[in-house]
Amino acid sequence: MHPIDHNRLMLLEHDEHTRRLEQIRAGMTASETSALLIADNANKYYITGRVFAGYVYISLEGPVIFFVRRPVKLEGDGVVYIRKPEDIVETLGLNVPSSIGLELDVIPYSTATRLKKLFPESDMTNASVIMRQARAVKTCREIDLIRESGLKHVRVYNRIPHLYQSGMTDLELQVEIERVSRLEGCLGQFRICGDSMELYMGNVLVGDNADSPSPYDFAMGGEGLDPSLPVGANGSEIRPGNTIMVDMNGNYNGYMTDMTRVYALGKVQPIALEAHQCSIDIHRALCDMMIPGTPAKELYSKAEEIVKSRGLHQYFMGHCQHAGFIGHGVGIEINETPVIAPRSRDIIAEGNVIALEPKFVIPHTGAVGIENTYCVYSDRVECLTPAPEEISYLDF
Amino acid sequence: MHPIDHNRLMLLEHDEHTRRLEQIRAGMTASETSALLIADNANKYYITGRVFAGYVYISLEGPVIFFVRRPVKLEGDGVVYIRKPEDIVETLGLNVPSSIGLELDVIPYSTATRLKKLFPESDMTNASVIMRQARAVKTCREIDLIRESGLKHVRVYNRIPHLYQSGMTDLELQVEIERVSRLEGCLGQFRICGDSMELYMGNVLVGDNADSPSPYDFAMGGEGLDPSLPVGANGSEIRPGNTIMVDMNGNYNGYMTDMTRVYALGKVQPIALEAHQCSIDIHRALCDMMIPGTPAKELYSKAEEIVKSRGLHQYFMGHCQHAGFIGHGVGIEINETPVIAPRSRDIIAEGNVIALEPKFVIPHTGAVGIENTYCVYSDRVECLTPAPEEISYLDF
Repeated sequence: MHPIDHNRLMLLEHDEHTRRLEQIRAGMTASETSALLIADNANKYYITGRVFAGYVYISLEGPVIFFVRRPVKLEGDGVVYIRKPEDIVETLGLNVPSSIGLELDVIPYSTATRLKKLFPESDMTNASVIMRQARAVKTCREIDLIRESGLKHVRVYNRIPHLYQSGMTDLELQVEIERVSRLEGCLGQFRICGDSMELYMGNVLVGDNADSPSPYDFAMGGEGLDPSLPVGANGSEIRPGNTIMVDMNGNYNGYMTDMTRVYALGKVQPIALEAHQCSIDIHRALCDMMIPGTPAKELYSKAEEIVKSRGLHQYFMGHCQHAGFIGHGVGIEINETPVIAPRSRDIIAEGNVIALEPKFVIPHTGAVGIENTYCVYSDRVECLTPAPEEISYLDF
Repeated sequence: MHPIDHNRLMLLEHDEHTRRLEQIRAGMTASETSALLIADNANKYYITGRVFAGYVYISLEGPVIFFVRRPVKLEGDGVVYIRKPEDIVETLGLNVPSSIGLELDVIPYSTATRLKKLFPESDMTNASVIMRQARAVKTCREIDLIRESGLKHVRVYNRIPHLYQSGMTDLELQVEIERVSRLEGCLGQFRICGDSMELYMGNVLVGDNADSPSPYDFAMGGEGLDPSLPVGANGSEIRPGNTIMVDMNGNYNGYMTDMTRVYALGKVQPIALEAHQCSIDIHRALCDMMIPGTPAKELYSKAEEIVKSRGLHQYFMGHCQHAGFIGHGVGIEINETPVIAPRSRDIIAEGNVIALEPKFVIPHTGAVGIENTYCVYSDRVECLTPAPEEISYLDF
């Protein structure tokens, strides 16, 4: 952990803050947005390196203003304490932007409407699009943080074979992984953009529970323990012939890696081994293609082509229910840009950090396939979750 | 766990579903809303007993329609599969409501705008208000579920003195409580209405970390482990003279209790003991007043009066930073109606389930005070978190 100056609002280095602002302002210029009023925690964290209650006001040319409700006693250039959003108007005075960007894909309708009223003369644009694009291209500092999370994530996964005890359920194994993750420094919080996906600390899928369709937009399902949270482990005992797919939370510092590995109890069906190898082969093929300028949908097509050539299509990304993507950007949140899906319009760019997760569900065995998080450079990719990729066998 | 019919969308008993619909329709009538289109997971869970991707359409008189995107294969009266929200229009046909209620306090601006376009001729009302009021009055079934969570919650807390080991940090103790909670059946998910509060599995506050102001709207703060999630445990070692305030997740079945107890290592300052007793006394006094018809703000005033009479005001609900409420409704989410705050306009009603948390932060000692969850009946309250209330001393 870094020592934190509790009173200094801005926790980013000056150059880092400047670099991020430049990315944001490039998006503002492109969308003809003269100012942003940022309310979302993930975006405030991106801009300042901390979460606080309040708003960040970014104009194209003036200084950034941090309107703070809580915590008390934050200090620094541009810090203005407010009690309610309406207090913002007084500080801005006559500097009314011709268009104001609000995070329309994230903040509730009521909030957006209230904030828009502060700028009655201004056009409204969608800051969510601007922030998503800015955050899709990670800075060196962000990549360092994701790499750091990745190393801890790997360290936890390496311990999984030692956590398994004969007769365990999926949940009992998951709880031990949660514990080890937390002691390794995992913050627990699993940030997801939007309000319709929910997950607690990740997903351990054993045997046929991997084939339970889930309502959430994750790559894999699972029945869950209760219909109020229908995803993941359902209390199944781990039996010989089952695979155990582990896809657990990798948020160790505000930035996360996404990583999946497969463990097995005893021998599994040959087709499961083939499918697992197919996933590894897809990773190799896509890493070669994942260079700046490649359309994201071409990565999806390539994966599909490999899967079809091996006759594994019916098991790909689910069996009873299929997920519609094989990869996604990751950083502060688990579902960032670009999206690797058939109709994605995203183009791979230098600085993207992308989790690839070509997976399969094999009836009577379970889920197989791996997930790694990669950083895209101009001429290569770096795997930020470097760990053995083959199925790891548990003693029983 | 209950055996679940995986294919039946409706998991509530007929009478239970009917009762909840009646509460919702009473609110629709009062706000002149002819139909609701419900998108929020917590509200869909309230109406059906499960979470799914899609929408629930409730008109004042017609049958309820469940528009489902995922999971596959749900069945039952009124189930209609859709690919996108625009498909709803075809099913509704000419039955256009004169006003449509959308969850404007919860769903993103973009979502609300897209859904409103399906009803170009209809007025728009705020379904969040309707759902909040309906959910504030719990049914017997809901109270049973909360009571069940409460008993498990209590069982976990009773084990805390056995989990402590000499030299532990706040985080290390919290991780062991998390593990025991999970093995007891805690689902982990901590549902909070709105998008600005974040918390992972609850809060363990030791010593002066209790006095670290947090940006979130929780009763107590804590620095947290990282500025990306500035709340709760910060890695402090538990030292003699410290109090340990435990306020952990009580969601065992989709409904949760909220409960806080205090542990201490060795002797603590007399003023901390006085403040703790003051909290217990406030609970007793407010339980006597918490009858249907009492304005919530009178409960707050009473608590404040007791605190002032004991000269403890500067420590009440925080020291460096003060929280603005001493209690809140709880159920599917942690921040339900009514709110026990100075300017609350809520009136206590039969069926309310309310967490009261009059707490204090004593410099150099830590946080003291208890939190219980109560159910309000016509003539009495029931404590749903029955456990010893005095400070529990840890061996060292």
